Order: sequence, then C-alpha cells, then structure tokens
Amino acid sequence: MRARSVTLAELAAELELDYRGDPATEVSAPATLERAGPRHLSFLANPRYRRHLESTRAGIVVLAEEHLAACPCAALISPDPYAAFARAATRFDSSRDFEPGLHANAVVAQSARLGRDCRVAAGVVVEANARIGDRVHLGAGTVVEDGAVIGDQCFIGPRVTLCRGVTLGQRVLVHPGAVIGADGFGVAMHRERWIKVPQLGSVVVGDDCEIGANTTIDRGTLDDTVLEEDVRLDNQIQIGHNVKVGAHTAMAGCAAVAGSARIGCYCLIGGGAGILGHLEIADRVTITAMSLVTHSIREAGVYSSGTPLQRNLDWRKNAARLRQLDALARRLKKLEQD
Amino acid sequence: MRARSVTLAELAAELELDYRGDPATEVSAPATLERAGPRHLSFLANPRYRRHLESTRAGIVVLAEEHLAACPCAALISPDPYAAFARAATRFDSSRDFEPGLHANAVVAQSARLGRDCRVAAGVVVEANARIGDRVHLGAGTVVEDGAVIGDQCFIGPRVTLCRGVTLGQRVLVHPGAVIGADGFGVAMHRERWIKVPQLGSVVVGDDCEIGANTTIDRGTLDDTVLEEDVRLDNQIQIGHNVKVGAHTAMAGCAAVAGSARIGCYCLIGGGAGILGHLEIADRVTITAMSLVTHSIREAGVYSSGTPLQRNLDWRKNAARLRQLDALARRLKKLEQD
Amino acid sequence: MRARSVTLAELAAELELDYRGDPATEVSAPATLERAGPRHLSFLANPRYRRHLESTRAGIVVLAEEHLAACPCAALISPDPYAAFARAATRFDSSRDFEPGLHANAVVAQSARLGRDCRVAAGVVVEANARIGDRVHLGAGTVVEDGAVIGDQCFIGPRVTLCRGVTLGQRVLVHPGAVIGADGFGVAMHRERWIKVPQLGSVVVGDDCEIGANTTIDRGTLDDTVLEEDVRLDNQIQIGHNVKVGAHTAMAGCAAVAGSARIGCYCLIGGGAGILGHLEIADRVTITAMSLVTHSIREAGVYSSGTPLQRNLDWRKNAARLRQLDALARRLKKLEQD
Repeated sequence: MRARSVTLAELAAELELDYRGDPATEVSAPATLERAGPRHLSFLANPRYRRHLESTRAGIVVLAEEHLAACPCAALISPDPYAAFARAATRFDSSRDFEPGLHANAVVAQSARLGRDCRVAAGVVVEANARIGDRVHLGAGTVVEDGAVIGDQCFIGPRVTLCRGVTLGQRVLVHPGAVIGADGFGVAMHRERWIKVPQLGSVVVGDDCEIGANTTIDRGTLDDTVLEEDVRLDNQIQIGHNVKVGAHTAMAGCAAVAGSARIGCYCLIGGGAGILGHLEIADRVTITAMSLVTHSIREAGVYSSGTPLQRNLDWRKNAARLRQLDALARRLKKLEQD
Repeated sequence: MRARSVTLAELAAELELDYRGDPATEVSAPATLERAGPRHLSFLANPRYRRHLESTRAGIVVLAEEHLAACPCAALISPDPYAAFARAATRFDSSRDFEPGLHANAVVAQSARLGRDCRVAAGVVVEANARIGDRVHLGAGTVVEDGAVIGDQCFIGPRVTLCRGVTLGQRVLVHPGAVIGADGFGVAMHRERWIKVPQLGSVVVGDDCEIGANTTIDRGTLDDTVLEEDVRLDNQIQIGHNVKVGAHTAMAGCAAVAGSARIGCYCLIGGGAGILGHLEIADRVTITAMSLVTHSIREAGVYSSGTPLQRNLDWRKNAARLRQLDALARRLKKLEQD
Repeated sequence: MRARSVTLAELAAELELDYRGDPATEVSAPATLERAGPRHLSFLANPRYRRHLESTRAGIVVLAEEHLAACPCAALISPDPYAAFARAATRFDSSRDFEPGLHANAVVAQSARLGRDCRVAAGVVVEANARIGDRVHLGAGTVVEDGAVIGDQCFIGPRVTLCRGVTLGQRVLVHPGAVIGADGFGVAMHRERWIKVPQLGSVVVGDDCEIGANTTIDRGTLDDTVLEEDVRLDNQIQIGHNVKVGAHTAMAGCAAVAGSARIGCYCLIGGGAGILGHLEIADRVTITAMSLVTHSIREAGVYSSGTPLQRNLDWRKNAARLRQLDALARRLKKLEQD
C-alpha cells in the first residue's frame, strides 16, 4: 500500500465535498468502521452497518448528511458515500503498480510487438503477431495467442487466456483464470451426430472494462462478440458467442448470457441470472439474482423470477401445489361461475 | 482463414442439396446476412433474422425452401440450413490447423510418449508416463499430468489441465481452462470433522467430444466418470464424480451434474440446469434452461421447472402468495365442499 | 495406488468396528459392490445400491447392521458405512504422495522462502516474498504471487492461482484452476461511469480446507475474506469479498456467496445455491440445491426455494398461472366473503 497520508481538507477539495471537523485531520489508509483507528479513513454506505458508526475510532468517516449527527469524528459529507469513499481509497491502492520488465522465463514470439514499460511476468507466453500496448501488465502464466491485441495500460492478471485475434481496448482489467475468445458453442445435428459450427468471429472488449476471475467470453460465430466500454463483469460469468453488452453494464458473479443476446447500456444483471439467446434487453434494465430472462425486455425497470426461500417442510407443501396450479385456477373459476 | 473459394455447384454437390442461381457463383468466406457481400456464403436458420434476407448482399444463402422466394441471390436449399451451413463453413475454418513442433520452452518428461506431428506450445508441461497420440495440439501452458492418455488428433487449447491418468479418445476438443480429472467432492462427517473420501477412479472421455472453457469433469470415486462419444459440453459445466453421460448428449453453459447421475444419449441439457446425484435420465430428454432435475426421468420429452420473469413489483406480490399456496388450495377445497 | 493389503481384523481394530467373517480375510484395494472381487473392500451406504449387495464378489463389505443378513461375504459393521469406508480407503490412496524436488523449469523468486521436502513442479512461478511451509506440493503451472503464505503440508494442484498476500493454513488442498484472492467485485457509479472500489483486504483460509477446481475466492475490500478450518468447497464455487464461512461448512458445486455474507459452522450448501450479500446464516443450516437465500437465517434447519420439475407442457400451464397468483388469491378471498 502506498505510504501516502492526506488531510481532511485535501480530501474534501479533491472530492468536492463538504466536511466537518479539523481540516488538518490526517489519514493514511482506509478501514471499516469497526476496525478503523485514528489514522484511518472509513465510510458508512449500507445502513446495516449504522450501529458501528457511534463507536468507531476512525479519523475520518465518509457518510450521508443524515448520519452526521451520530458521527463521533471528522466527516466528509456525500450524497453517495460509497462512490466518494471509492474515489478516496484509490489513492491508497498500490495493487496495480508494477516494475516494468520482461522476465527471463517469459516467452515472447519474435513477431509479437510489445509496447513501452510493460511487465511480462514469469511463465507468460505471447504468441506470433500479438500486439501489446504501453504500460501493460501480463501476470505470471498468462497466455496471449496469435494476433491478439491489448491496448495501453491494460492490467492482465496471472493465468489469463487471450485467444487468437481477440482485441482489448485501453485500461482493461482481466482477473486470473479468465478466458477471452474460446470457441462459441455451436453444434448442429447431422445424420445423428453433432457437427461443429466453425467459430470464425472474434471478441472485442471496449476501454475500461473489467473481467472477473474464471469468467469466459466466447468468440463470435461470424461477427464478433462485443463488450462496449466500461462493462464490469464479476467472476465466473459466461458470455456466449455473438453477444453484445452495452456500455456501463455490470453483471454479478455466475451470471450467464446465451448466444446472440443483445444487452443494453447501464443494465445491472444479478448474480447467477440467466439470459436466453437471441433476446434484446433495453437500457437500464435490472435483473435480480438467479432470475431467468426468457423473452426480450423492451422497457427499463426491475425484473425477477423465482420463488421465495422457505423452511423445507413448508416449501414441499407449496411446491406440490404448484403442480396443480392450473387445476386450482380452473376450480376457482368454476366456483365463481356457480 | 484458408484462402479457398468454392462455387455454388461444388457446394451443392458436396452437401447433396438443390440450388437456385448461377452454378458458377463463387464464395470465399462465410458471413451473416447483414454483413455479407457478393463473395460471402450466408444462411437463414432462425426466423428472427428473416428480415435481413431480402436486403442481403450475400453471394449465396443457405435456406429452407419456404424462404426461397424472398432470397435476392443464389441459394442452397436445405431442410436444415444451420447444419448445411455448418458443413459448408468448415472448409473456411483454419483455426485448428497448426505447424507441428515441440517448443523449446515446453517440458516433456522422458517417460512420456509423444506421437507424430504434434504441436507442443510454449509453457506446456507433460508429466511422467503420459501417452499422446499423433497430430495432437497442446496449447500454451497446458498441463498433462502423470499417465494421462490423449488419442490421435485431439486439439487441446491453452491452459488446460488433464489430471493424472485421465483418458481422452480421438479428435477430442478441449477449450482453455478446462480441468479434467480433479478429485470428486467426497467428504464424510466423522467425530464432527470432515474426512476426505479418496477419489481413486479416473475420467474417460470418448471420441469426438468437445469440452468447453473452464468446464470441470471430476474423476470417479472408485469407478470412472465417463463421457461417451460425441458428447458436447459448453463452458463452465460441472460434471461430478462417477457421472455417465450418454453419446451425442449436449449441455449448454453452466449446467451442472451431481455425482453418480446417469444421463442418456441424445439429451439436451439447457444452460444453468442442475441434475441431482444418483438419478437416471432416459435417452432424448430435453431439460430447459435453469431447471432443476430432482428425480429420475424415465421417458423422452421436454422437462422444466422455474417461474416466469415478471416486473419485480408483480413478482413480489405473486411470490408472497407462493408462501401461502398450500393454504389457498385448502381454502378452495373448503369452499367447494360448502 | 499403494500395494498394501490389510486383513479384516486389522481394519476392524483400526476403525473400532465389529465384524463378521474370517478375521484373516485380506483386501488390497477398494471397489464398488458391482465391480469388486475377492481382494476388494467395498461398502453399502446409499440404499439405492442395495440390489448389488447380494451378488457382490467383494472380499469385505462395510455396511450397517440392517444389511448384514444379505451380505454374502465378510463384513465390517458400522452405523455410518460411508465414513467408515472413507477412513479405510484412505490407506489405499497414493494420489497425494510425491517426491520432493524443485523442477529446473520452475521459477522461485530469491526472496521467497520454501520449506523442507516440497515438490515444486515444472512451470510453477513463486513470486517475491512468498512463504511456503514444509512438505508442500505445488502442481505444474501454479502461480504463487507476492507475499502469499502457504502452511505446512498443503497440496496445491496444477494451474492454481494464489494471489498476492493470501494465506493458507496447514493441510489445505487446492484443486486445479482455483483462484484465491482475485479482486472482489466493487464498483460505484460516479458521473455515469463506474469507478473501481479498491480491494485492499486479503483471503485467509483455515487449516484442513479443501477448495475445488475452478473455484474462486475473492479478497476482501478492507478486511479479509475468511474460511475457517475444515471448510469444504466443491468445484466452480464463487465466494465474494468479505465473506466469512464458518468451520466445517461444506458447499456443493456451483454454489455462490455474494459479498459480506456470514455463514455459520456445519452448514451444508447445495449445488448451485445462491446466497445474497450482507446476510447472516446460523450454524447447521442446510440449503437445498439451486435455492436462493434472500434474507438472513437465524435458526438451524433445512431451507429451499424453487419449483418442481414437470413435463414442459404441464409446466407452461402452471407457470402461466403463477403470473396471476395474487389475483387468484384475491378472487378466492372474495368468494369466501360472499
């Protein structure tokens, strides 16, 4: 972590926020309300953790105005304390800093082009004709196949696979184990055997995207699979071939999008949610966790499927009735008619 | 992509299809209806894309007879345009072509046996007693553990793990990040602690199977986990220990099969579907996306669980009623009796 | 497999179990009831397989007293045959045995500390300041980033990623493709763009944990993500940032836990189950497969959500009614009032 300390006044100026307390109050690291000491910057965003505010020993807390009265220390006042904290905490984050250098044990093909000030860690393999921008980080064991293109300032973690010909924009962050550009899943039945549908497209990832650990993004069948700028994917997400994900859309862990779906901008896709193929989802649609989207969604809003959690004994009784639901509805109708 | 062009007459002969138009019409690559130009082969399979047919600039379109009238160019007529297109497009796919060679940076144990004309990329590790057939591709960073066996013409992508002793048939295609042969999940509680159940079986993958990116197939506890021939698994699928998957079955992304389940031939398992352990599923069963199979299925057919997507406000009201469904059914019964 | 044979009397003494049959009966490997021969140890735990008992050719079977009469051979009698078998079978498992040694192709940073009798396979990368205990196994292609700490006798499979600064206790087993310590998924919207919330915590994994293939465990935002001792995670599980998993809890494949959830001890989380963020789950809670936990659970017990599998035709009818469920309930109420 960078050993940089900062005063309340400096933070307030930087974040353009009002504050309360001694402007010279200094903090040098972030911490939770529970753990913070006098040199820590903390925050209150989720009201669940309100109970920890009154007893915090933090030096400075970022919070909404409504919680100011309960705050025992210096405070930065923001209508969105989570975002304000994130911006402030970034200055304490050194995890993306690196020393440039090409490890002796890395393998870079002669025809590959490597920009200035990159770090290429041990065990990296960069194959023929790959083009890598400036200040790019390639973590240990990462593989960049033939002809893949990586924009400036991308940070690729360890053990990532970028398949042949995929393109990443600038400042893309890819976490360990992610696979970008494996074949889409295309098979067709012919004389009682599967034949493989060639996957001849590629993947194009826009600027400022983030791709989670062990997430997979398949190459297109003919056209490309596309993530527009600033798309944020958590871990173990599956993006099928030919999918298009609009700018600023975020998906939580284990969400899956089947082939040729088109997702709008500023969507929020909940963890484990599924989106069937060939659908269109409008901008600013939210899908709650583990919902299944089976038809196109034309209007912004929040959508859900699924059933509530119950004690198993109650659930069994209710679930058994689900099998009879249509019959129940018909019986009700009949009673009404009588 | 191979620079091979082909005429309408040649394609028609090869695929045994009727055609319409100038038999000398030549195409040299496939493309979607929207993007195709005069040198492109295209297809219409999903009626959703029918609107692009009339305006396509493609040289040749593969389509069903019913769409022929609307087609502005040469056409190949097939009752199954998707399969016909797949067969035709294969000739333009060079992604599985490779130059044989053992990279200086690969590590192959002395006791391992390597067939003719293999490509072993940089960063590959082949451990003791592994046996690898002819014309096998091992992508960068792939690990083949002790005693694993790989049949002729398998294409293993980068960063794959084949654990000790697993066996792949011929022409198996394994995508990046897949793990074949990790321990099955076997634990038993003893004196309030878990003890591990040794996983002493292996994995046997039949000829012509395809295994998706980051998919995991566990080794058996005592017997082997088995994929029969021509099984097609998409990305991020989990196959538990002792599972048997019948020939020609296909599973979409993120499906999961728990231990000791036995799945028939020609089944279609939808994305994100779950199959509990120790079940049997008959041949030609289709499970729709995100359904959970909790009991054996004895008859071919289509099976589903889950609830339809709704606006969250409506869903909340209906979901609340689900908790009362058994009570509602009883109240209805009482009314009927009155 | 170790070539060690053992007698019925020795096994009975070791496991503290009663037995029936010739105490000198000798077995040298485990096998299923169906496959076993006279030199095999087998077991009957799941009553589904009872039909194989009478015809088994096994030398010794571990079983519950109620099945003793039907057993045609020597028997070890246990109230929990699965656990007893697991303990007995461990002696035949050599998969965790290894020859110590540092492969010439492995890369270990000068500042890293490596304990006694470790195996560091080909393609391993151990970065600066990592500390690795005694008798640790690092499989081929595994990456240990800066400052990670691995306790004695950990067995890390091939192609694992341990990110900077994570800590594993003793005897932890990590399967291929697992990623421990990637960034948690933290983003906040600011002026219509996402900003990344720095992930400054780490991951702490307790003694005797097992982490499945391609499972991901994210580092905490400020505090650490914690697995207490003896936690057992199957494949493709996702553990979000700041999560705490209590001792002896087990999760089946593809389960996912969102950020900051706190799960008790001795919980059983079914395959594909989802747990939303910031929840608390009491000790000894069981969640059935593919259920979604949307609120805290304060009491031990079994909990479920979801709907039963049906033929698609029936399911469609019932699912359509689900959209009207609230309306149906109101109509019923009205009838009752009339």
